[in-house]
Amino acid sequence: MQELKKVAVIMGSDSDLPVVKGCIDILKDFGVPTETHVFSAHRTPGKAAAFSKGAADNGFGVIIAAAGMAAHLAGALAAQTYLPVIGIPVKSAAFGGLDALLSTVQMPSGVPVARVAVNGAKNAAFLAIQILALNNPTLTKQLQDYKKQMADGVEKKDAAIQAEVNK
Amino acid sequence: MQELKKVAVIMGSDSDLPVVKGCIDILKDFGVPTETHVFSAHRTPGKAAAFSKGAADNGFGVIIAAAGMAAHLAGALAAQTYLPVIGIPVKSAAFGGLDALLSTVQMPSGVPVARVAVNGAKNAAFLAIQILALNNPTLTKQLQDYKKQMADGVEKKDAAIQAEVNK
Amino acid sequence: MQELKKVAVIMGSDSDLPVVKGCIDILKDFGVPTETHVFSAHRTPGKAAAFSKGAADNGFGVIIAAAGMAAHLAGALAAQTYLPVIGIPVKSAAFGGLDALLSTVQMPSGVPVARVAVNGAKNAAFLAIQILALNNPTLTKQLQDYKKQMADGVEKKDAAIQAEVNK
Amino acid sequence: MQELKKVAVIMGSDSDLPVVKGCIDILKDFGVPTETHVFSAHRTPGKAAAFSKGAADNGFGVIIAAAGMAAHLAGALAAQTYLPVIGIPVKSAAFGGLDALLSTVQMPSGVPVARVAVNGAKNAAFLAIQILALNNPTLTKQLQDYKKQMADGVEKKDAAIQAEVNK
Amino acid sequence: MQELKKVAVIMGSDSDLPVVKGCIDILKDFGVPTETHVFSAHRTPGKAAAFSKGAADNGFGVIIAAAGMAAHLAGALAAQTYLPVIGIPVKSAAFGGLDALLSTVQMPSGVPVARVAVNGAKNAAFLAIQILALNNPTLTKQLQDYKKQMADGVEKKDAAIQAEVNK
Amino acid sequence: MQELKKVAVIMGSDSDLPVVKGCIDILKDFGVPTETHVFSAHRTPGKAAAFSKGAADNGFGVIIAAAGMAAHLAGALAAQTYLPVIGIPVKSAAFGGLDALLSTVQMPSGVPVARVAVNGAKNAAFLAIQILALNNPTLTKQLQDYKKQMADGVEKKDAAIQAEVNK
Amino acid sequence: MQELKKVAVIMGSDSDLPVVKGCIDILKDFGVPTETHVFSAHRTPGKAAAFSKGAADNGFGVIIAAAGMAAHLAGALAAQTYLPVIGIPVKSAAFGGLDALLSTVQMPSGVPVARVAVNGAKNAAFLAIQILALNNPTLTKQLQDYKKQMADGVEKKDAAIQAEVNK
Amino acid sequence: MQELKKVAVIMGSDSDLPVVKGCIDILKDFGVPTETHVFSAHRTPGKAAAFSKGAADNGFGVIIAAAGMAAHLAGALAAQTYLPVIGIPVKSAAFGGLDALLSTVQMPSGVPVARVAVNGAKNAAFLAIQILALNNPTLTKQLQDYKKQMADGVEKKDAAIQAEVNK
Repeated sequence: MQELKKVAVIMGSDSDLPVVKGCIDILKDFGVPTETHVFSAHRTPGKAAAFSKGAADNGFGVIIAAAGMAAHLAGALAAQTYLPVIGIPVKSAAFGGLDALLSTVQMPSGVPVARVAVNGAKNAAFLAIQILALNNPTLTKQLQDYKKQMADGVEKKDAAIQAEVNK
Repeated sequence: MQELKKVAVIMGSDSDLPVVKGCIDILKDFGVPTETHVFSAHRTPGKAAAFSKGAADNGFGVIIAAAGMAAHLAGALAAQTYLPVIGIPVKSAAFGGLDALLSTVQMPSGVPVARVAVNGAKNAAFLAIQILALNNPTLTKQLQDYKKQMADGVEKKDAAIQAEVNK
Repeated sequence: MQELKKVAVIMGSDSDLPVVKGCIDILKDFGVPTETHVFSAHRTPGKAAAFSKGAADNGFGVIIAAAGMAAHLAGALAAQTYLPVIGIPVKSAAFGGLDALLSTVQMPSGVPVARVAVNGAKNAAFLAIQILALNNPTLTKQLQDYKKQMADGVEKKDAAIQAEVNK
Repeated sequence: MQELKKVAVIMGSDSDLPVVKGCIDILKDFGVPTETHVFSAHRTPGKAAAFSKGAADNGFGVIIAAAGMAAHLAGALAAQTYLPVIGIPVKSAAFGGLDALLSTVQMPSGVPVARVAVNGAKNAAFLAIQILALNNPTLTKQLQDYKKQMADGVEKKDAAIQAEVNK
Repeated sequence: MQELKKVAVIMGSDSDLPVVKGCIDILKDFGVPTETHVFSAHRTPGKAAAFSKGAADNGFGVIIAAAGMAAHLAGALAAQTYLPVIGIPVKSAAFGGLDALLSTVQMPSGVPVARVAVNGAKNAAFLAIQILALNNPTLTKQLQDYKKQMADGVEKKDAAIQAEVNK
Repeated sequence: MQELKKVAVIMGSDSDLPVVKGCIDILKDFGVPTETHVFSAHRTPGKAAAFSKGAADNGFGVIIAAAGMAAHLAGALAAQTYLPVIGIPVKSAAFGGLDALLSTVQMPSGVPVARVAVNGAKNAAFLAIQILALNNPTLTKQLQDYKKQMADGVEKKDAAIQAEVNK
Repeated sequence: MQELKKVAVIMGSDSDLPVVKGCIDILKDFGVPTETHVFSAHRTPGKAAAFSKGAADNGFGVIIAAAGMAAHLAGALAAQTYLPVIGIPVKSAAFGGLDALLSTVQMPSGVPVARVAVNGAKNAAFLAIQILALNNPTLTKQLQDYKKQMADGVEKKDAAIQAEVNK
Repeated sequence: MQELKKVAVIMGSDSDLPVVKGCIDILKDFGVPTETHVFSAHRTPGKAAAFSKGAADNGFGVIIAAAGMAAHLAGALAAQTYLPVIGIPVKSAAFGGLDALLSTVQMPSGVPVARVAVNGAKNAAFLAIQILALNNPTLTKQLQDYKKQMADGVEKKDAAIQAEVNK
């Protein structure tokens, strides 16, 4: 079995950490090696480009990028790599995340960004894990267990609600 | 080198074919084995669920789902598999695709859908190829070539524009 | 007079209960037998489908489904039944409920969902009661009384405002 | 078996007929007695109110109302009856139907309108049939047949697509 | 000089009073006789219609109507009178007043509603006063004075800001 | 009976004439003296301001302003007069008139603009006539006749639809 | 080296000062002479026009205008000058700044307004400085230093995050 | 008098030329030296960055960037220069330009983009000319003449409309 590739978790500003934390925690729970950075598409564009250009050679398999407002970060990274890039639009004050959502989802052909929900940091992690699991039976098993666990959780809540609301 | 996994291209209605065609063609150009289906999340929910549940065992690596309006298809497939699912929101008459975009991007935690642009069928293909390329040097080489080709294309257009507009 | 059919009140997450409570209370006030469940279109899709498929045979007459974000629940239930399904879009943080509203209102032809206002849980109950009242004179009488009561309430407020604001 | 109640199909302007036609045709196909009217919430408010107030006594079971722009018609009818009222927001030039959608979906508590998709006239018919079918085994059988027919249609398209696209 | 006509200030719910208060106070400051009511387009449609139908004969010159969500009140009143009707869209939780704004601004030809800003109750009063002032030199003088007063207020603030911010 | 005041119909560009035509025609049909101008809030701001400042003294009673995009015209005129100003947001290519609607409806307190629907030029005329009719029995009579005529028109269409659609 | 031109910072209301403060502070930090005013496009239109008309002759090089809602201020100033005018849309309660954004961005050809982000007062200052720096080596040097400082800041945050999150 | 700096007109795709043409033509009419390029923020990010980084040293004074959808081009160029960057959001099929508008207007502090209207290519040219005119009396004179010409044009249209519409 091939060694697990790393997931890069890039945020445009350290103020995005509370949102991005949910992503990092899940990757760690699944035992996926991660590396977290603050790169700004507009303030340190060279650093961001250099990181992305070298990511595949440096052992990364997936890049996750979180940014708000005119959220160019995911696109700027995607421009420099052939690795899958996942974008998390971060909710901002003015437009409830619609600005960040449209900024990243509408990418030109040939340079895709896999977009998850506004502030959907956890799903960015799950998507990265699903991608890496394609060649990793251990991760696959973990995903299957997690899916079952989620279902069990909903069933428990169903039972609890029935106890509370129904006669 | 591991054998290439298949990509499933599912559309919610055969009227989505003109959009989805761009996706299928690129997958074929890259030599990725694909299988195309029409499944409806609302009219043949059982077929859709059964397909997705069995997809991993049947040799699929990625599922692409295209649908418009209340675009539940990608989510319905994602609910049944641990494979990465890519959603293409198809533009509809009433809301320019915003309905389909919001319908699929805002998935609950643990069940991600990788969303591309409205009618972004080509990028769904590229994203699937990027995912499969993680363990396939041939695909990686093809992606690198394609990226170079795109850049060359833009440079040629730059030269042409300069010849036309600049003195 | 035919025995009253049951109303199923399904929520996608137990966090929707504060919204859904308004629906359950009104159904109980009108003496309509209800059964409340937590089913997730994405986490327990099989449970949701099985419940909806058997609902008519199990004595249900109307299904109410409340969900937020990519609110597929009502549509997923509607796909499995010929009973009327009422959808309550639950307001979420990012888009004020517009995501849930568009996710459920734009259903394909042949699989309708009767949509009420964002967080309009009470009106989901009233709509279900109106439907059941078509063959139940007692419920009809109750609805007529309630309508009169609402009108009286507004008239009392009109009188109070006049006392307060007008000379 | 109780005699089938009538469905009233009201449009705010005769220019809505092309949209509403899809509703009327399905109701006729299912053998549901219908009565079509042009009433305007703003130009003939008295006629609209009188019709709705008398609808239950005149043998109607469901009222369907189609209107565009500041689409008050469904609400104006709902204000005068305890029958279920289904609203069809008709797409207008300026806002793609968002004006009509918001105008009718956001009804006050106690006066629900069951809203279908923008221009979703066919689903208004199906919803009305589902409501009437609650006490009519013949309609129930027809709905079951129709659901099967829809599924067969999708399966045929699936087969056709596979023949065309897949090898 | 002709006696001043009355202004009716109608709100759809007594919960709108905090917004509407700004309107009533200005009308009183200008000495315009007003009458305030709570009428609901959906709960007491008959009362609303009767009031509006008789308004001109009862000495009213302008009707102001404030309502939120599916804000039909202004339109319902306009349908019954040839007096100018001014609509105040009240901000609601889900859509920031866009629902109420679109609900009332998009009226059919021949039944206008003069719409002011979301929660723009004060401007509804000023507009009503401008209308009545067309035949009332005293009101005209008051409006001219008020306009001057507003300008003086801005100039004072300009001076204060300069003292504070500029050297 | 006092002589009828004039209505000024101002458009921001002569390309707005097709929309504004509907307004002018109705004013002429009702015998209201009108004067039409092209003034631009941004290209001839001095002309616009001077006209508005002198409008009351020059025999105008109401000013109607039609403009698209960043539609400042109505507001710029309202800033210079105490006459009622009616704004028509003209639909533009990019945002379906939402830009013009928001540009004019959200006026600051003390400087109201009475806003009608996007491209609602006819209702701007009706609103102006309603305002002038407050002191003109002839116009009042004409409005009453017109309202009756509209109702008759709808009733005729109702009869025609019934003949066509109903048995 | 030419003397530095002044930057005018105009706000539509003194309630905009908390937003505009960020603009003034940066201009001062860069040593750019500024002059701040409160002018209202609707309440003191003459003052605003006169200031703008004389701005170039009075030593100003750039005008910055901040306003919310129907934000005409920037456009009203732009109409009277050939100086570059920068508009700051101020966030308002009802539409999250979309009203102000659309009100100012959609200017007619020939009368541009340079629009920055909603509440983007700091960037209005930076844009003004960039414009003045075109002919001022000192300002250019300051901008280069600032850009470097921003990059250093992001790099420090990157190091801090890595210390905190990565092993 | 200092020699005129050049204006760079960059488009993200040669398909944007029909929109951008209006910008180039005006710059040429005013005698401003321009250089046009096709650079893609996502396909040739290195070329775009290199051009922007060297622009000031290569004699450019202003950079204009036109792009649609996830319109990162203007921001990507602004990240590399201290020159003023003007962004033209190009209208796309799906969201009427709102995606491009939000993608570029919401830039982070310190890296401004001066945004004009959707497809507002002409105003991008005028804004660039206004900026360069700050130190160029010839351009200033041309702008003053153009403003007068625009006013004359509106006055001629006013006269024509009056001849046509008014008596």
